Amino acid sequence: MSQRLRIPRLKGNDYSEQAARQRREFLRERSGVELQHSSHYSLDPASLEGNTENFFGVVQMPVGVAGPYRINGEHAQGDFYIPMATTEGTLIASYSRGMRLVSESGGCTVTVIGEAMQRAPLFELSSARHARALSQWLDEHFSAIKAEAESTTRVGKLIDIQRWVVANKLFTRFNYTTGDAAGQNMTGKATHHACQWILAHFSGIENFSLSGGIETDKKHSHMNLLHSRGKKVVAEAVINKDLLRSLMRAEPERMVRLRQRTVIGSLLAGSAYNGPHAANGIAALFIATGQDEANVVESHTGLAFMDLTDDGDLYYSVTLPSIICASYGGGTGLATQRECLQLMDCYGQGKAHKLAEIIAATVLAGDLSLAAAVVSDEWVSSHDQLGRNRP
Amino acid sequence: MSQRLRIPRLKGNDYSEQAARQRREFLRERSGVELQHSSHYSLDPASLEGNTENFFGVVQMPVGVAGPYRINGEHAQGDFYIPMATTEGTLIASYSRGMRLVSESGGCTVTVIGEAMQRAPLFELSSARHARALSQWLDEHFSAIKAEAESTTRVGKLIDIQRWVVANKLFTRFNYTTGDAAGQNMTGKATHHACQWILAHFSGIENFSLSGGIETDKKHSHMNLLHSRGKKVVAEAVINKDLLRSLMRAEPERMVRLRQRTVIGSLLAGSAYNGPHAANGIAALFIATGQDEANVVESHTGLAFMDLTDDGDLYYSVTLPSIICASYGGGTGLATQRECLQLMDCYGQGKAHKLAEIIAATVLAGDLSLAAAVVSDEWVSSHDQLGRNRP
Amino acid sequence: MSQRLRIPRLKGNDYSEQAARQRREFLRERSGVELQHSSHYSLDPASLEGNTENFFGVVQMPVGVAGPYRINGEHAQGDFYIPMATTEGTLIASYSRGMRLVSESGGCTVTVIGEAMQRAPLFELSSARHARALSQWLDEHFSAIKAEAESTTRVGKLIDIQRWVVANKLFTRFNYTTGDAAGQNMTGKATHHACQWILAHFSGIENFSLSGGIETDKKHSHMNLLHSRGKKVVAEAVINKDLLRSLMRAEPERMVRLRQRTVIGSLLAGSAYNGPHAANGIAALFIATGQDEANVVESHTGLAFMDLTDDGDLYYSVTLPSIICASYGGGTGLATQRECLQLMDCYGQGKAHKLAEIIAATVLAGDLSLAAAVVSDEWVSSHDQLGRNRP
Amino acid sequence: MSQRLRIPRLKGNDYSEQAARQRREFLRERSGVELQHSSHYSLDPASLEGNTENFFGVVQMPVGVAGPYRINGEHAQGDFYIPMATTEGTLIASYSRGMRLVSESGGCTVTVIGEAMQRAPLFELSSARHARALSQWLDEHFSAIKAEAESTTRVGKLIDIQRWVVANKLFTRFNYTTGDAAGQNMTGKATHHACQWILAHFSGIENFSLSGGIETDKKHSHMNLLHSRGKKVVAEAVINKDLLRSLMRAEPERMVRLRQRTVIGSLLAGSAYNGPHAANGIAALFIATGQDEANVVESHTGLAFMDLTDDGDLYYSVTLPSIICASYGGGTGLATQRECLQLMDCYGQGKAHKLAEIIAATVLAGDLSLAAAVVSDEWVSSHDQLGRNRP
Repeated sequence: MSQRLRIPRLKGNDYSEQAARQRREFLRERSGVELQHSSHYSLDPASLEGNTENFFGVVQMPVGVAGPYRINGEHAQGDFYIPMATTEGTLIASYSRGMRLVSESGGCTVTVIGEAMQRAPLFELSSARHARALSQWLDEHFSAIKAEAESTTRVGKLIDIQRWVVANKLFTRFNYTTGDAAGQNMTGKATHHACQWILAHFSGIENFSLSGGIETDKKHSHMNLLHSRGKKVVAEAVINKDLLRSLMRAEPERMVRLRQRTVIGSLLAGSAYNGPHAANGIAALFIATGQDEANVVESHTGLAFMDLTDDGDLYYSVTLPSIICASYGGGTGLATQRECLQLMDCYGQGKAHKLAEIIAATVLAGDLSLAAAVVSDEWVSSHDQLGRNRP
Repeated sequence: MSQRLRIPRLKGNDYSEQAARQRREFLRERSGVELQHSSHYSLDPASLEGNTENFFGVVQMPVGVAGPYRINGEHAQGDFYIPMATTEGTLIASYSRGMRLVSESGGCTVTVIGEAMQRAPLFELSSARHARALSQWLDEHFSAIKAEAESTTRVGKLIDIQRWVVANKLFTRFNYTTGDAAGQNMTGKATHHACQWILAHFSGIENFSLSGGIETDKKHSHMNLLHSRGKKVVAEAVINKDLLRSLMRAEPERMVRLRQRTVIGSLLAGSAYNGPHAANGIAALFIATGQDEANVVESHTGLAFMDLTDDGDLYYSVTLPSIICASYGGGTGLATQRECLQLMDCYGQGKAHKLAEIIAATVLAGDLSLAAAVVSDEWVSSHDQLGRNRP
Repeated sequence: MSQRLRIPRLKGNDYSEQAARQRREFLRERSGVELQHSSHYSLDPASLEGNTENFFGVVQMPVGVAGPYRINGEHAQGDFYIPMATTEGTLIASYSRGMRLVSESGGCTVTVIGEAMQRAPLFELSSARHARALSQWLDEHFSAIKAEAESTTRVGKLIDIQRWVVANKLFTRFNYTTGDAAGQNMTGKATHHACQWILAHFSGIENFSLSGGIETDKKHSHMNLLHSRGKKVVAEAVINKDLLRSLMRAEPERMVRLRQRTVIGSLLAGSAYNGPHAANGIAALFIATGQDEANVVESHTGLAFMDLTDDGDLYYSVTLPSIICASYGGGTGLATQRECLQLMDCYGQGKAHKLAEIIAATVLAGDLSLAAAVVSDEWVSSHDQLGRNRP
Repeated sequence: MSQRLRIPRLKGNDYSEQAARQRREFLRERSGVELQHSSHYSLDPASLEGNTENFFGVVQMPVGVAGPYRINGEHAQGDFYIPMATTEGTLIASYSRGMRLVSESGGCTVTVIGEAMQRAPLFELSSARHARALSQWLDEHFSAIKAEAESTTRVGKLIDIQRWVVANKLFTRFNYTTGDAAGQNMTGKATHHACQWILAHFSGIENFSLSGGIETDKKHSHMNLLHSRGKKVVAEAVINKDLLRSLMRAEPERMVRLRQRTVIGSLLAGSAYNGPHAANGIAALFIATGQDEANVVESHTGLAFMDLTDDGDLYYSVTLPSIICASYGGGTGLATQRECLQLMDCYGQGKAHKLAEIIAATVLAGDLSLAAAVVSDEWVSSHDQLGRNRP
């Protein structure tokens, strides 16, 4: 028997239930694993076209609810119940207690500062001078390039083209707004089209690559800490000092003092984020809502800031410059993911900013909960109590 | 009616199906969302104790199969079918064609170089000299500290304690091997216990925190690129030049030349990984196999290297120093995740290194596929064909 | 007798020879050191007003000449003799042989890509939204702010204001061109003045600092690798393969292959520069020409790129984004420093770009020489021969 | 007439006064510059053998004195007058007022934490497994390798060999103590010798380079922030709050609050140092004392920490992990440089740690002075008053 899966590969991918069953049968024959649970789903395999190739089943990723959480965004306003998909014990409980703390202190204020999704073409020329000339030419012909790029998309808008001459090369970032989609493919297509026009109109480009690497797709980078990939969002809260003591058994002064010290740890380690654990909340929300889970790596970078107010309350803020999220397209329309989005009224057109605000607010709540736990020395003991018995 | 969920919070968390149903009912009342699909699952809610609080349903995350993939590891040996959970169109197809390319070239050689999971306590003393003295004292009393730490765990072993004096503080990393578990909780507990002993026996520690931040849990960091968090794994392959041309329409020389250029982009951007997209394969495997999905941020960092061999073939290698994965504990035992692990015979005791090898090999295959696509200018067009219609 | 120097401190600093003599006498009494050589100088102490307080003597820093060096800049054109001040054995000899190699290959092409000197004020507001509003307001009032800033300087021009909202703060970079001066003080003064206007016209700024740190004055930073502090210059050369073999005993292919490997070292180390030793040439030229020697830390960052041409020659390029140099002001007018500038016809108005080109070209020559030495295994032996006997 | 300098190049370098005069004459003929001041020196050109090739004259770098400065080191104890070579106006005055502030508060406590100078060979093998085997072999044969390395030097001692497997390569750092010399050449020679032994005894090393780049010689790197290049030194001081107010017009609370904010700027910028300006003091001391001025780039990296004490005084500390300095060898023995070292009793054997302590203490004083000036808004105005009139 052939060593290959007898299912079509790239072309003619078959999204029928029959194909899924055949794949399960094939896997069962080879591994002896029954796939009893993976085969239990209500989604329609046909709905996966454009999302998942060679589909054979599902992971039933458990989802819990955190909240209610009072969010004072410009897009997300009110008390939210947040679906979080995770298998890490304590996580939802911890985020939920953070949400309670923030909500009872008046809620979390969230603000979208800006957005940019990009593709980063690389042009190689005969010399640095030639590369500088192309850089200037792109500036002068921005309107035409923008028109070319936007001809491929209904919603993507080219904002600007960042440019860096290195050696005889021009590294660029074509930055777009992408409406309610994450936009990686949209911007790839638009930039590819725009670059065809550039290649046709500027002579002397010796080599070209649609990516020179500085969009750092699916990678953390300092570039994206500075210049955003996705939405830049700031969440802020002022935590009442008495609530902090009663709910969390944590002193605001101790929390600030510890943070003054751990920020030195962040510098020493060269850390992508100086708060406790942005990635946890982001990953749990991304999976629940059909986001691209690999984008957690870009999205988790950011800057956290903590200080006492004049009243002795605790001001805390997380600035997340690269939250990549969508309320439309990608995995958002799949059966369960769509339901999770709908729980927060975040599905469909015009909801991406709202979702970004909820994500940032969630990060803030989780950070406060863990930071308080560390200070009150409850960290190990709470994991011990709730977490699965580890070997 | 109260604004709060009338379900127990931290204490007395109820893992019954009845509780799950009540939560769904509660959410339906507030949001109007039926949760028709999220409520469709075969897992036993009782199995979620220690994994997910406030459970109300599941995300049906679609899983496709990539492979067969010939892996020549020290632990993973043979032809593997790899379950990948993702909603990003093209991803599985792309990884699968990379696996074919590598397999037909002889397979992927994978090597676990080392491992370390850590908790990073911070000690504050009266002066730098005092901190230096503690640093030396920890060195001299390592055996006793090791005994204390290991008294809390059957499998965790304290390897060493890295130490950095900064100001009047001692930042440390207590590095462990953790068997087949990821080990974050195990090491937290062991280190907490060991630190109680240190605090009792070394006088003059003015402040202490179980974390000073330099383990950078759930964060990328340069520290972990250098000193590992999880398993350090290297995957290598030599790709036959003719196969590269016939299967991928890519010239080896062009691939190497482009990589010489994008590595400059990586330096310019300050990127956590200089290959194309480690995070994609890692995330898809993590979700399929019940790993902590937030750990993708640590795991995706690494160094990729590409060069021509003397024969004109393509040597490619990915070095991933912080793959955090488990074959036991955490979410690995959940119904569907366990099945996915079993498909690769990676469930249970003694399988963590095997899983780490498969993950690194998968990253290598996906990198080659995307790198070839960029060079052959198929990148945009393949997404266009397979990917969901984007707005 | 008082423990203090009996010379005026901040106010009424005395730049007379008598004061210098008194200081030497004072130091001699306390230390027993005669200062026989430090007191041997031809400069006029009065010329040091604005450069050096509490002057007591000089360091006689030896200067050697490297070159001739053929430079094909837009400002520096011709064959140059380069004065280099250093006490590191081998350095001048090594740079000089690099200059010969490049000159005989046709010379070094240099291009100034851009420039920016900045001060980076920090504004704190009531909230992120308020900070975002200030950011937008700065954009809308740029003309007025520019007029305010430029009212304090004859040559400084405000180009733009980069802005980052973090928490409730607005971090900015006020970027200027500064003519032939380095411009740190000029931009400090102009920005201070502009900020007074901003503080008077935008209500609600709660805290303000003239520096929030992101100009990273006297510090390397990734920010300045990306956004320049000083002049961004690219030097390029194509080295004839036969010359490389005959003069340096180095194979072009070996040099490229080694560089492919050391760039991985650069990523692993998190290095500020991926070439061999930009800092050496920059420091030696900075000291010789009266630049601020501490600015070597900003200036040495950059990106080096090496590849074979289609003819098998060696293309090498160094991109230095933050060369901070002046042909006027600061230490450039001091007796000996001015002579060194004049040797290259780089003193006075309109010469700063020329000097920046010479500096970048010098870095390129030194890099090639050392890179070739490493490949030909002459590195240790050449130091051994020329370098001082070390203990 | 030939385009070349008619003076010997690499071989037969002539260190006579006659040769220097001939070079000046040569330069005068070509440039028309008289070199009236550069030719005025008291040093003996013959003393420059091993320091400066192609010597033609000197830069008279002005040196001022800062202090007295009370230093409570383990090696430097007492009140010091510090020679600082600089042409940046305000610098000495500012450091001096910082020294006064610290001295009157009781002085600066300094501690050398450790030291390491290294060469970083790269070994390439057939596979990662082979590289891992070499890594283990180096560990097992450390004694023999140490003996080989140390056979080339009287004072250098090999401490350890750090090892990183990447792809099929082994990146290493051979770390040494180097007595009172900076040690770059010593460690290069010793490592070269040790590697010859390794190459002879371990079979299968396909490529070898004495440097794989991760010592980052003459470059800042995160590696050296973590693992030191040179001496790791911590300077600390507790500043009396009343003195801070009276001498500096600065409130301790305001200084700490500003620092909490600028550290966020450091993270945003990706800065090599989070204090104000380590490089200034280091560069001025390096030039005065004959250090390798390019090493400022490695030496200026570090971590600064500021906090209030329980009494409301100001604790400040700078941790500088890579101070590269020597009291012997290199440029330390030149006429004027030696005098400057002698002023602090830092010349010759057994003085390198003392000098390192003085350097770190100086950085601390300068940081405090500038930090206070920023807070009291005196920064711009003091430069305006003392600094040279800028264009």
